[in-house]
Amino acid sequence: MIVSYDNLLKQVIVVLEKGLGYTPSQARITAEVLVEADARGVPSHGVSRLSFYRSNLKGGFAFTDREPQVVHETPVSLVVDGRSGIGPSIAAFSVDRCVEKALETGTCSCVVRDSNHYGMAGLWAERAARRGCMAVAMTNTRKCCIVTFGKERLLGTNPIAVAIPGMGDDMFLLDMATPVVAHGKVEVYDRRKKPMPMGWVVDEAGRGTSDATHIEELFKGESSSGGHLFLGGEGEELGGHKGYGLGLMVELMCSALSLGRWSPETFSEPGTGSGITHYFSVSKMDLFGDEEAIRQRVSSIMNSVRLSDRAEGQDRIFVHGDKERDARAKSLRDGIELDQATVDLFALYSDKFGLSPLEGTR
Amino acid sequence: MIVSYDNLLKQVIVVLEKGLGYTPSQARITAEVLVEADARGVPSHGVSRLSFYRSNLKGGFAFTDREPQVVHETPVSLVVDGRSGIGPSIAAFSVDRCVEKALETGTCSCVVRDSNHYGMAGLWAERAARRGCMAVAMTNTRKCCIVTFGKERLLGTNPIAVAIPGMGDDMFLLDMATPVVAHGKVEVYDRRKKPMPMGWVVDEAGRGTSDATHIEELFKGESSSGGHLFLGGEGEELGGHKGYGLGLMVELMCSALSLGRWSPETFSEPGTGSGITHYFSVSKMDLFGDEEAIRQRVSSIMNSVRLSDRAEGQDRIFVHGDKERDARAKSLRDGIELDQATVDLFALYSDKFGLSPLEGTR
Repeated sequence: MIVSYDNLLKQVIVVLEKGLGYTPSQARITAEVLVEADARGVPSHGVSRLSFYRSNLKGGFAFTDREPQVVHETPVSLVVDGRSGIGPSIAAFSVDRCVEKALETGTCSCVVRDSNHYGMAGLWAERAARRGCMAVAMTNTRKCCIVTFGKERLLGTNPIAVAIPGMGDDMFLLDMATPVVAHGKVEVYDRRKKPMPMGWVVDEAGRGTSDATHIEELFKGESSSGGHLFLGGEGEELGGHKGYGLGLMVELMCSALSLGRWSPETFSEPGTGSGITHYFSVSKMDLFGDEEAIRQRVSSIMNSVRLSDRAEGQDRIFVHGDKERDARAKSLRDGIELDQATVDLFALYSDKFGLSPLEGTR
Repeated sequence: MIVSYDNLLKQVIVVLEKGLGYTPSQARITAEVLVEADARGVPSHGVSRLSFYRSNLKGGFAFTDREPQVVHETPVSLVVDGRSGIGPSIAAFSVDRCVEKALETGTCSCVVRDSNHYGMAGLWAERAARRGCMAVAMTNTRKCCIVTFGKERLLGTNPIAVAIPGMGDDMFLLDMATPVVAHGKVEVYDRRKKPMPMGWVVDEAGRGTSDATHIEELFKGESSSGGHLFLGGEGEELGGHKGYGLGLMVELMCSALSLGRWSPETFSEPGTGSGITHYFSVSKMDLFGDEEAIRQRVSSIMNSVRLSDRAEGQDRIFVHGDKERDARAKSLRDGIELDQATVDLFALYSDKFGLSPLEGTR
């Protein structure tokens, strides 16, 4: 089904408010975060996550009656207690305060404990960049990844997002899970019942597999063996220890610096919140001098990369953020395509919560 | 040849002072940086680099009569002009000032332009960590890496180092080049005339190769095709675009923020300096509250990882920095092993500069 951006946004807001009991502001920011992911061609973090967000409420991992609060502050830092509220609300609260402090002092870092899933990490770095800052956003997640020479799921998919604004709307926007792929990508293959590429995950015996459904079952079972490989793959020869290093860095910066839960402790005790932790860092673009000259230099380097010699058969070199920016423009123009499982989910919710059905354009 | 740490350090200082004309303080810090790399089992960044440091002076890319200076400053930031002086001196100057400012305000970031090769990036992050701070160190380098869907060498090996102190001497110390391997590793295979693992580099036709000597020749030639693959390898399926994203992030944070030269512009005009750029960021360990509790949490997470279930046939899980710490202790006890090419280099220098020969223990 093809749905317009606005229709999808409205429907998600209604589902969150009427169906899940979110407050209007929680529903608005959460819907924006989910619909933006679909619009940008990242369905792994899109509206299909509604079922996960719903199960978090039912499982006692997230609560709609809790608002975040600042529990420690210096002129250049913030610690936020998310109080197990709604992830995107907590992230927006934290990033906005971080930006306000950075605009005063030049830079501000923020750690958040007892938060929840906040959607695509890149959106939070971008949120600060839209206010003229460069920014980093990281989060831990439930455990999914195997460390080098290990066999149990231990660290989360622990993404890193970095936004560096160039001229006008031009922006470097890296948004990467530290394993080869984010777990949401496995869920997409499971939902679509398609084989995944090899090299993403290993099963409980440590063997590579393309069976997304088996991995999903494994993740729901008792054993903690088997899971995602970090960027660089198994062992050290092709740099798997580097991907693992980035994943552990994110883990320490989110969970240790916030004195929150680390990935294996998240989603562990129903009723106590998921315990997800985040890290944000925001700096003004004139921290190192002439903002205009720096923005020009950022864009000029990115343009040189975009226009550099292409490998045979390739017709475009992308800078990080380009693909998603193009996909978003297309989605605003032509609508967003939802897969059948997601369409079915909306039908179920309309029925269950007594809502008008989601209106597609075709 | 096995050489004691102290003998090697003394000999490198003498070579730098008497042979290359470094000032005593430039020689001291440069020798420390090179010998530390060998002591830690990272010969790609060790004393064999003396020939590169020498050729930088001869080529007009580095100058011993130039000292770095601060050219822009806020309470939380610094811009340093390295004036094409000696890399390790410029890095020490920058990190030390960054630490001093961070100890006052909580955090400080620093970009450096017109610097030079500064050795292992991890040593600079560690230098700040030894003064009770967490730290990031990055640098660009001459161009060696191919971007996703591209074919020309464009970005440097652009390493990222992150130090987060735990309890006592315990520390997370990630130090990773953003391609699969640092270029120094290719040089080691070339020097030892051994085949490299596949998956590190591609040749001028875009084919994988294990021939380090061919890659070295390629890098000295006219064509800019062929070079290092970023972490994750070719294409996007196993995440090569993520490694490329990290490399481009380092490039922007070092060269664009400092308004310096980006990797393809470095080492381009003899007599004008290499133009290498760096980025450092330093924060106090109490930026987010109780330092003691945070350090305990850092170590407790790292210990849980170290003690987690191992894959079959593996007897140890490492946290980043563990291997190098062990290698360093062994080197201090048993001496440092130099390969024959490096021993020959010292013999050549002793002869050329009229120095006593390097004394090995066996």
